[in-house]
Amino acid sequence: MPASVTAALLVIGDEILTGRTKDKNIGYVAEYLTGIGIDLREVRIVPDEEAEIVSAVRALSERYTYLFTTGGIGPTHDDITADSIAKAFGVGIDLDPRAVALLSERYKPGELNEARLRMARIPAGADLIENPISKAPGFKLGNIIVMAGVPSIMQTMLDQVAPTLETGARMIIETLEADGLAEGLYAEGLGAIAQAHPTVSIGSYPSFSSSGFRNQIVVRGKDPAQVGGAVAAVRSLLERLRSSAVPARRPL
Amino acid sequence: MPASVTAALLVIGDEILTGRTKDKNIGYVAEYLTGIGIDLREVRIVPDEEAEIVSAVRALSERYTYLFTTGGIGPTHDDITADSIAKAFGVGIDLDPRAVALLSERYKPGELNEARLRMARIPAGADLIENPISKAPGFKLGNIIVMAGVPSIMQTMLDQVAPTLETGARMIIETLEADGLAEGLYAEGLGAIAQAHPTVSIGSYPSFSSSGFRNQIVVRGKDPAQVGGAVAAVRSLLERLRSSAVPARRPL
Repeated sequence: MPASVTAALLVIGDEILTGRTKDKNIGYVAEYLTGIGIDLREVRIVPDEEAEIVSAVRALSERYTYLFTTGGIGPTHDDITADSIAKAFGVGIDLDPRAVALLSERYKPGELNEARLRMARIPAGADLIENPISKAPGFKLGNIIVMAGVPSIMQTMLDQVAPTLETGARMIIETLEADGLAEGLYAEGLGAIAQAHPTVSIGSYPSFSSSGFRNQIVVRGKDPAQVGGAVAAVRSLLERLRSSAVPARRPL
Repeated sequence: MPASVTAALLVIGDEILTGRTKDKNIGYVAEYLTGIGIDLREVRIVPDEEAEIVSAVRALSERYTYLFTTGGIGPTHDDITADSIAKAFGVGIDLDPRAVALLSERYKPGELNEARLRMARIPAGADLIENPISKAPGFKLGNIIVMAGVPSIMQTMLDQVAPTLETGARMIIETLEADGLAEGLYAEGLGAIAQAHPTVSIGSYPSFSSSGFRNQIVVRGKDPAQVGGAVAAVRSLLERLRSSAVPARRPL
């Protein structure tokens, strides 16, 4: 098992950048990949413009084990993901007989017009990712996994492709409640614990709620002993502070 | 008024990339900037790692009129945004007396410990952005606007900084309902309309709902005449199709 399998996610679509559509895929993909032992290291959102897609696809696919994309694989003129990816890699793109066969299950011969056939344009050498909901497939070309933007379809595509991917050690994530303690009170101790556990990443996340605030400390790492040691150290820091500090009225 | 004022958003935080926290800032910033005449052209999410932040900050601030960042300005060791930005620009960073004064409104002298004072570390030459909620300020350095990650605080910071920014022509956005029509049916006509209106961007967005599906066509542009012309053309395309087509059972 490799120590670390990494990924980036590229979200393609003007509708996300104008705020017209609120993305629902980033959080889902992040949690999903973390859960199967793939570290999501970067996310980018770019418009429906070929030059932007080509340049992001090249940069991200070179840098990480996998690049996932969402959006831009429908039948309309603004769906240019497949063509942009073929261009990024200098491979051909044409109607793929396997994809045409899948679309033919859904559309009668007269219905399968030129626009709908755009959804069967697949770069040469790609493996298809089936789409049980609307048939138009995603695909995997090299280390790039191209998925639909509609969340329900994206999710079924991720389920299909996941078992074929290399995965690494899974991240162990432990959350500790720091209720009643302000970040500024435990920050110094937390920094010392982080320094003493270099393979572990420790984050502190204040959030506000109707009942006041809620601070949580999250310890993440792949070495169970290191994570366990850091969690124990954080727990004893919080206990020590709780026994001496006046309950905070504010999170920071 | 400049023809186009552009922006990127850089979201900083491991918690977003692991899926622990679902981002609520991207959609908000996207809609907000679009509404005031700033075109959000790119979004990136990177981890709490100096090298990643420095490299993204340099790339994005060079390329766009403004770069907005969210996250990483609290009191704990993983809050490294201000230091990373100083490093990206080769400017100094130290305790800022104005920021210390703001924090002193909230914390008694004994409470203002080293960790909390981290929130007053501001790169040299930056303007502060006040934070009425928890006092720790954001800042603007050159074309970079550094904001908190907590959505309520980020939103007040955006409200404060917005009036000081250069803005361009506002995007006109018109949404047309294509209910009952499949994308594959209007795709060809829509592509022709898009080609005939080169300054306008036209998107088609299928979505699934409990009652079936809902297709919407969105026309965006800055030239009222071009947008109006495209909208009229799309409307007449949809009417023509509705009068001849059998209502679709599927969106594509």
